[in-house]
Amino acid sequence: MNVDRRNIVIIGGGAVGPKAASRARRLDPNVDIKLIEKGEFISYGACGLPYFVSGVIPNSSQLLARSPDYFREQLEVDVLTQTTVTSIDRNRRLVHCSEGGGKEFSLPYDALVISTGADPVIPPLEGRELAGVFKLKDLPDAVAISEYLKKHEPRKAAIVGAGLIGLEMVEALKARGMAVTMVEMLGWPLPTLVDFEVGALIAKHLEEKGINCIFSEKAVALEGTAGGRVRRLKTANEVVECDMVLFSVGVRPNVSLARAANLEIGPTGAIKVNDKLQTSDPAIYAGGDCVECRHLVTGKPVFVPLGSTANKHGRIIGTNIVNGHDTFPGILGTAIAKVFDMSVGRTGLTEEEAKKAGLEVTFSIVTPPDLSSYYPGNKRITLKLLAETRTGKILGAQCVGQGEVAKRIDVIATAMTGGLNVSQMSDVDLAYAPPFSPAIDAVHNAANVIRNKTEGIAKGISPQELKQKLNDQENLLVIDVRTKTEWNRERLEGPKIRHVPLSQLAQAGPEICAGKELVTLCHSSVRAYHAQRMLERKGCRNVKFLDGSLVAWPYKKTVVK
Amino acid sequence: MNVDRRNIVIIGGGAVGPKAASRARRLDPNVDIKLIEKGEFISYGACGLPYFVSGVIPNSSQLLARSPDYFREQLEVDVLTQTTVTSIDRNRRLVHCSEGGGKEFSLPYDALVISTGADPVIPPLEGRELAGVFKLKDLPDAVAISEYLKKHEPRKAAIVGAGLIGLEMVEALKARGMAVTMVEMLGWPLPTLVDFEVGALIAKHLEEKGINCIFSEKAVALEGTAGGRVRRLKTANEVVECDMVLFSVGVRPNVSLARAANLEIGPTGAIKVNDKLQTSDPAIYAGGDCVECRHLVTGKPVFVPLGSTANKHGRIIGTNIVNGHDTFPGILGTAIAKVFDMSVGRTGLTEEEAKKAGLEVTFSIVTPPDLSSYYPGNKRITLKLLAETRTGKILGAQCVGQGEVAKRIDVIATAMTGGLNVSQMSDVDLAYAPPFSPAIDAVHNAANVIRNKTEGIAKGISPQELKQKLNDQENLLVIDVRTKTEWNRERLEGPKIRHVPLSQLAQAGPEICAGKELVTLCHSSVRAYHAQRMLERKGCRNVKFLDGSLVAWPYKKTVVK
Repeated sequence: MNVDRRNIVIIGGGAVGPKAASRARRLDPNVDIKLIEKGEFISYGACGLPYFVSGVIPNSSQLLARSPDYFREQLEVDVLTQTTVTSIDRNRRLVHCSEGGGKEFSLPYDALVISTGADPVIPPLEGRELAGVFKLKDLPDAVAISEYLKKHEPRKAAIVGAGLIGLEMVEALKARGMAVTMVEMLGWPLPTLVDFEVGALIAKHLEEKGINCIFSEKAVALEGTAGGRVRRLKTANEVVECDMVLFSVGVRPNVSLARAANLEIGPTGAIKVNDKLQTSDPAIYAGGDCVECRHLVTGKPVFVPLGSTANKHGRIIGTNIVNGHDTFPGILGTAIAKVFDMSVGRTGLTEEEAKKAGLEVTFSIVTPPDLSSYYPGNKRITLKLLAETRTGKILGAQCVGQGEVAKRIDVIATAMTGGLNVSQMSDVDLAYAPPFSPAIDAVHNAANVIRNKTEGIAKGISPQELKQKLNDQENLLVIDVRTKTEWNRERLEGPKIRHVPLSQLAQAGPEICAGKELVTLCHSSVRAYHAQRMLERKGCRNVKFLDGSLVAWPYKKTVVK
Repeated sequence: MNVDRRNIVIIGGGAVGPKAASRARRLDPNVDIKLIEKGEFISYGACGLPYFVSGVIPNSSQLLARSPDYFREQLEVDVLTQTTVTSIDRNRRLVHCSEGGGKEFSLPYDALVISTGADPVIPPLEGRELAGVFKLKDLPDAVAISEYLKKHEPRKAAIVGAGLIGLEMVEALKARGMAVTMVEMLGWPLPTLVDFEVGALIAKHLEEKGINCIFSEKAVALEGTAGGRVRRLKTANEVVECDMVLFSVGVRPNVSLARAANLEIGPTGAIKVNDKLQTSDPAIYAGGDCVECRHLVTGKPVFVPLGSTANKHGRIIGTNIVNGHDTFPGILGTAIAKVFDMSVGRTGLTEEEAKKAGLEVTFSIVTPPDLSSYYPGNKRITLKLLAETRTGKILGAQCVGQGEVAKRIDVIATAMTGGLNVSQMSDVDLAYAPPFSPAIDAVHNAANVIRNKTEGIAKGISPQELKQKLNDQENLLVIDVRTKTEWNRERLEGPKIRHVPLSQLAQAGPEICAGKELVTLCHSSVRAYHAQRMLERKGCRNVKFLDGSLVAWPYKKTVVK
C-alpha cells in the first residue's frame, strides 16, 4: 500500500460500487481503490434476472457487464470478492474484513462507500424453509430458481406480492409453462405505485393471460410434502396448491453495518445521506438500495430502491470520493414494468399519495391511441395525469396499455423535473409523425383535459364515483353516446344506462335532463366530453363525462358475442 | 344570421380551422361559426398522405377525421366547402367569398381566423408542367399520385429534395416497387434539420435500401416523352432517367390574403402573430402553416410548418376567439421521420444553427443500445446532444437509428422546455426496466459526456475533424482498442491506424504516445473514452477519443468479409 496515496474502500459490488470505482479511477489515477463484494460476482444486470428465469435471456453470463479482472487490469481497482466487511471503525478509519477462507484483515480508508443494497423480505411464516420457496434478489437466487425448475419441473407457482418483481416473475414463470397464482395483500397490482383504476386494468390483463389473481389476502402459512417441498400456500380465506413459491413482498435496506457504525438511519429505515450522498460521517458515502432519497415532489425522504437510481448514485459518489463535487437532487419514484403484452409505468405521486400529502389534485384519464389513429399497429394507452388544482403543477402520472407507455412516462418525469404546469405541458413541442404519435399526443391531451377541468369547462366523474352512484343514486341517467355498432359489441348494462348515439343526442330536446343527474360515456371519453358540453348547451345543469370511459372502465363490462 | 350573436369566420379547413371551430363551440354555445374551405375535404390527416401513397394506409377515407356534416350537426358550425375567400375588408369586417359555382357573397366577422396553410414550392424549371410531375401537399395530390401509379405503372421515380416529406416519399415509392433516385441540393438528407454526421448515417441507410442518392446537385430541367410525360431529370452533372418526379423542396406560406389585407408579414415571409396568435389586426387570428413562430432557444421568428404546431394553434385560437385567454409560447423545431428501418428525430438547434446564433457549444455523440444491452431486440441509436458550453443549458439534439429514437427526442424537447442543463438532465428519474431502456439511458449518457467534456476530463474529436487529420496531419496515431474479433469484422484502415486491444493497451508503456497526437476509437466510444483516460494516466498529453466511434462514423469503413 502506497502511503502517499489516498485510500478508497467501496463495500458492495452491485451497481453503485463498480460505477463509483470506474468513475473515481477515470477522474484520478493517484488513488488506491478497493472494491469488496461478499459474493462471487460484481457489476451485473440484476434487473435482468426475471428475464433470465423466463428464458428470454438464455445465459446468466449475458448479465455480467464487467468481470473483476476487467476492474483489476483496466482500472487498477483491487477487487476482493467473497469477502465480507464485518465492521467499520470510524475513529481509526478502518474496515474489518473477513475472507471466505476465514482470514481476517483490516483496510484503512480515507473515503468509504457503503453500497450494501437491500434484501427481499420473507415474512416469518410457517414453512418458509421448505424447498421450492424462493426470493429473487441476486444472481445466485435466479440460478437457484432456474435449477429448481429444471430439476423438479414444478407445475404450479404461487407468487406472493404484486410489486414490480412480482409482476415480472408472474410473466417469467408463466413463460416457463407454469400455472401461476398471484397473491397480493392489497387490492390491486402495484398497489403502492398506481391508483386503483390503473391497477385494475393490469389485473384484467393478468386474468386474460390466465393468471389466478387473489387480492386483499395475506399469505399466512406454507405446507410441505413429506419430502420437505412446498405443496400449498394458505391465506386467511384461500388455499393455493403449488409446488413453488416466490416471495416478492418488498425489500429492506441492508443497514446493519451502517447502524453498527452509528451512522444516521433515516425515517424510512434506510441510511440517511445528504445531496452529496455523504452519510452523517462526511468520510463515508452511501448510495443505491441501502439509502433513502429525497422525493422531488414532497421534499420528504422515501425509500425507493431501483437500479436507475443506483447507477446515478455510483457516478456521483465516484466524483465526490476523489474530491470532485456532484450532487443528487432526488427522485420522482419513476418505474416501469412489462406485464405480458402491456406496459405499466408511473412517476411522481399517485392520487392517494397526493391527497395524503395534503395536496388538492385534479386528474385526467385519457385513452388515446399511441400512434396516429390511422396508422397501422396503433394501440390505445390509458394515461392518468395528476396536477395540483391551484397551480396546475404536474404531480404525477400513471400509464398502462399495449401501446407505447415508456415515452409518455419519461416525458412527464422530465416535465416534472423542469417544474412544468399543465398549460406548459400542453404546448411542449414533441416529435410528431404518424408512425410515432398522434398530432396531439396523450400527454398534451391529458394536460388539456386537466386545464378544461380546472377552468370548469370539462366536468369529469371517476369510474369509482360512477360505480358508487350506479348502486346508490336514484335520479341518475348514464348516456352511452357511441354508435349502434359499438353498443352492440360491448357495453355497461343496467336500468340507469341508456344508449343515445351522439347524432341523435344532437337532436334531443332539453327534456332529456329533466331533474336528472347525467353522466355521458363513450369509448375513449372524447365524445363523452363533447356530449357533456352539448347537453349543457341544451340547458342541462348537472352533467358529467366518465373519465376514461369504456377503455379505462376498471369493472366488468357486458361483452356481447 | 342572428344579429345578437358574435360572428366567427375561419378560413381554411386543414388542422387549425376545424380544431379552432370545435374548441370555440365547446366554450361558447352562443356564437355563429363559419368554416370556409376552398377544397372538398376538411379535417384530415395530411401527415398521413405518404402512407396512403405507400399503401400502408389502404384507403384515403381513413385519413378523414371528421366530415363537414359532423361539424354542422354536432357542433353547429356552418361549413362552406369549395368556397374561396377572395379578400378581407378589415374596415367593414367583411370577408368576400366566391363559391365553386361562381356565386359571390360576403360574410361579416367579429373575429376572423386565417389558416390558409402553405403550398409546396415547385422550382420554375423547364418541363415542370409534364405529366408525372407531382407535389404532395393535400389529399387531391396524394390521390393524383396514387392514380398515376395505377394507370401508368411508372418504374423509376426521382424525388427532388430530401426533407421530411421527401424522405417519407422515398420510402413510399420504394414500397410501391419503384427504383428511386433522391436529388438533394445540399450535402446530406434533412440538411436544414440535422448536422452532417447525423445526415450521413441516414444517407448510408438509404443506400443500403437501394436508393440512388445524389447530393449537392440541383434539378435544372425536366425532359418529356412525345406524349408529354416526364422521362428525364437533369442536374448540372447528372441525368436521371425517370417516369415520375416528386418535388419536395419545401413549402411557402399562403399569405396572399393576409398581405392584400395589409396584415404584417414577418421576416420569414409568413404571417406575423403575437403570443395570442393575433395578427397585426387584433380581430384577426392566424395559425398553422401560414404563420411564423418564436423559436424557444433563439427567441427569433422561424417558419417551421408542422401538423403538431397547427393542432396546438387551433386550440389556442379557438379559446381566444370566444374571448378566452391562451397563449402559444413557441417551438423547438422538433421533428421526426421514419426512413425505412430507421427513425430520425431532432429538436432545438443543430450545431451549425447554434454557431450561427453565436453560441459556444459543446456536443456529445453517443451510440448506446436503446434497451438494456442484454435484453433481446435491443438496437443501437446515435444521439448527438448539444449544450451551451458555459451554462450547460441544452440547446438541441439529433437522434438516428433502428432503435427507439422518438422517446429520446421527446424527453430532450421537454427538458429544453423546462430549461434544464446537462447536469440536471443526467439525473432525471426516467423509467427503467430492461425491456424499455438501459439503466443509464442515452440521454443521461449524452448529458454526462458533455459534462465530462466541459470539465476537461473527456476530450473528444469529431468524425469530420479526424477525417481531416487523417488526410493532413503527420504525427497522428489512431488506436483502435476493440477486440481482435471486432477488428477482423470491420475497421478503419490506413497507415495512421493501429490496433491495440484495450487489454494490451493497459500493459503498454508511455512510449506509445512519444511525440504523437493520439486518437482512440472503439465501437460505441465508451472504451475509447476509457482508453483516453488510461493513456493520460500513462503520461500521454495529447489524446482524444473519437466521438461516436465506429457506430457513428459517417464515412466509409472497411468491412472484412
